[in-house]
Amino acid sequence: MSLTIAIDAMGGDFGPQVTIPAALKCLKYNSDLSIILVGDELVLNELLADDLAKYKDRLLVKHASQQVEMDEKPQNALRSKKDSSMRIAINLVRDCEADACVSAGNTGALMAIARFVLKMIPGIDRPAIISTLPSTFGHTHILDLGANVDCTAEHLYQFAIMGEEVVKAVEHIPLPKIGLLNIGEEDMKGNGQVKAAAKLLEASSLNYVGYVEGNSINAGSEKVDLIVTDGFVGNVALKSIEGAAKMIATKLKEAFSKNIFTKIAALAAYPVLKLFKQSIDPRMYNGASFIGLRGLVVKSHGGADELAFETAIHLAEVEIEQNVTKKISDKVAATLKERESE
Amino acid sequence: MSLTIAIDAMGGDFGPQVTIPAALKCLKYNSDLSIILVGDELVLNELLADDLAKYKDRLLVKHASQQVEMDEKPQNALRSKKDSSMRIAINLVRDCEADACVSAGNTGALMAIARFVLKMIPGIDRPAIISTLPSTFGHTHILDLGANVDCTAEHLYQFAIMGEEVVKAVEHIPLPKIGLLNIGEEDMKGNGQVKAAAKLLEASSLNYVGYVEGNSINAGSEKVDLIVTDGFVGNVALKSIEGAAKMIATKLKEAFSKNIFTKIAALAAYPVLKLFKQSIDPRMYNGASFIGLRGLVVKSHGGADELAFETAIHLAEVEIEQNVTKKISDKVAATLKERESE
Repeated sequence: MSLTIAIDAMGGDFGPQVTIPAALKCLKYNSDLSIILVGDELVLNELLADDLAKYKDRLLVKHASQQVEMDEKPQNALRSKKDSSMRIAINLVRDCEADACVSAGNTGALMAIARFVLKMIPGIDRPAIISTLPSTFGHTHILDLGANVDCTAEHLYQFAIMGEEVVKAVEHIPLPKIGLLNIGEEDMKGNGQVKAAAKLLEASSLNYVGYVEGNSINAGSEKVDLIVTDGFVGNVALKSIEGAAKMIATKLKEAFSKNIFTKIAALAAYPVLKLFKQSIDPRMYNGASFIGLRGLVVKSHGGADELAFETAIHLAEVEIEQNVTKKISDKVAATLKERESE
Repeated sequence: MSLTIAIDAMGGDFGPQVTIPAALKCLKYNSDLSIILVGDELVLNELLADDLAKYKDRLLVKHASQQVEMDEKPQNALRSKKDSSMRIAINLVRDCEADACVSAGNTGALMAIARFVLKMIPGIDRPAIISTLPSTFGHTHILDLGANVDCTAEHLYQFAIMGEEVVKAVEHIPLPKIGLLNIGEEDMKGNGQVKAAAKLLEASSLNYVGYVEGNSINAGSEKVDLIVTDGFVGNVALKSIEGAAKMIATKLKEAFSKNIFTKIAALAAYPVLKLFKQSIDPRMYNGASFIGLRGLVVKSHGGADELAFETAIHLAEVEIEQNVTKKISDKVAATLKERESE
């Protein structure tokens, strides 16, 4: 199956320095893949040099005269950056010239432009951001990670429907276990939206297993495949986990570099520490998908390096191959029909 | 300064097996401290044996015929457990026979009973749970950790006022830096309450430094002393961090126990790993204070071992010595007066 990905080559903290080598690596490993690099053609052509000839049928450069800044206001990017690499990459998805777009650019702008250009899947009120985090059981998918700060129970329910399709497609699990993020104390348990969402999920045909707490994201007492929450809570949880991992890594490094003896111990432990580091390498989890839109957009972390950006491109490849957008549309249409007939 | 702490000796997953040795350790190290152990006197007296004579003026047992179960509904505990160790320990605080109460029991029940028995500080609408987490900069205080699932901007503002007094007293920082937990994306930034709370904080005399993201709890780009959020988000963040730390510890252990070579490396690295483990030992951060009440209540983790429970008792000692409850009351009264005169 041949697939085409449009890459916002100028996006992210490092722009083409990262996006180009990552794109070339992906072209090398997947001969079915074509890539359209969108950005300043002077810059891109110079960096690509012989690669354009090497991948002539599979690598294209599309010029964009503008670029969305990392700290630009999304509404500004939407209004005045119509010839930006980000906008054009998304346009390519709308026009079916690409099957997905990958960008490491400004998240808010990417979401605003994607929503404006691609439009929503009928029956879905809000787009959501879904990603994967490592867990003691393998990994856990979680949404929404920041697209929606205030969510109704209906929104959370729609996230569950969409998220299930992503997990089914990407993980090949027929009936993913779905948990609703909540807090543990009995009487204080849950705000209004979460309690109402639980009722909707219980009444649905989804494999809803009940409330889960924050620790279920990485290390709950049993495996949950998908965790549903609103974008405010999801984003705070994600960032909190990032902060905890960073602090622990810092403290581990400090412990091993304290004196000559600990440094010798570090040498002895080096292969193990390397293995350990790989097992929780956040670059292997880079890439969050915007779902609920009529086209596939994958957001890479802004600070992604080559390996991390490659992971985001791979995520887009898998979601294209698995036809995730269509599966979500079909599922939503079927759910709407079911509801109407009730 | 002499101080008295009432301990719910039956609370927690391990009850007197943990609470008694921890209490005895604290009595040993602080000769100004008196402890009232509340619980089944038959059980307690037997476990205490000679210790009652040893600490005769400073150690008392107060009988309680009931016990609040860890999974009991708070409203049930409030109504039908009037002779429980938890309730009596809190009554001792109300009756000024103890300066604080420490319990590892059911959080929801402890909060419900404490609120009912002790009442709120005038001017404070809701009690909050505050605790400390390790960070690359030392540590960070955060509230609310689960007492309130839905908070208005005014509640968040009150949390900041109370939290500031705790941090000032416990850390001896004259003007703690206060951050409001939010999400990063510009256009999506913040829900209504958070935005409104930011305005209240900006207009206040507090040292409000602005929005912070989840990673600021453990490893932000600059130190924040106090992070304010609602109880739903705070609890999810806390549990997410616990889960991340647990997963990382599991993966580190796995890496070192993979085969004979990694096991040898583990031996070489043992002293360093031990040091590292100590530096992030959650037992050293055990103890969350319920604030906003007219009396001091410290909640220990239910699964606390002796060392962890000792930490919770120490927290109560410090907060008594620093007169935290009075400082909060005075600050709230002064703030109310200021507001009236505006």
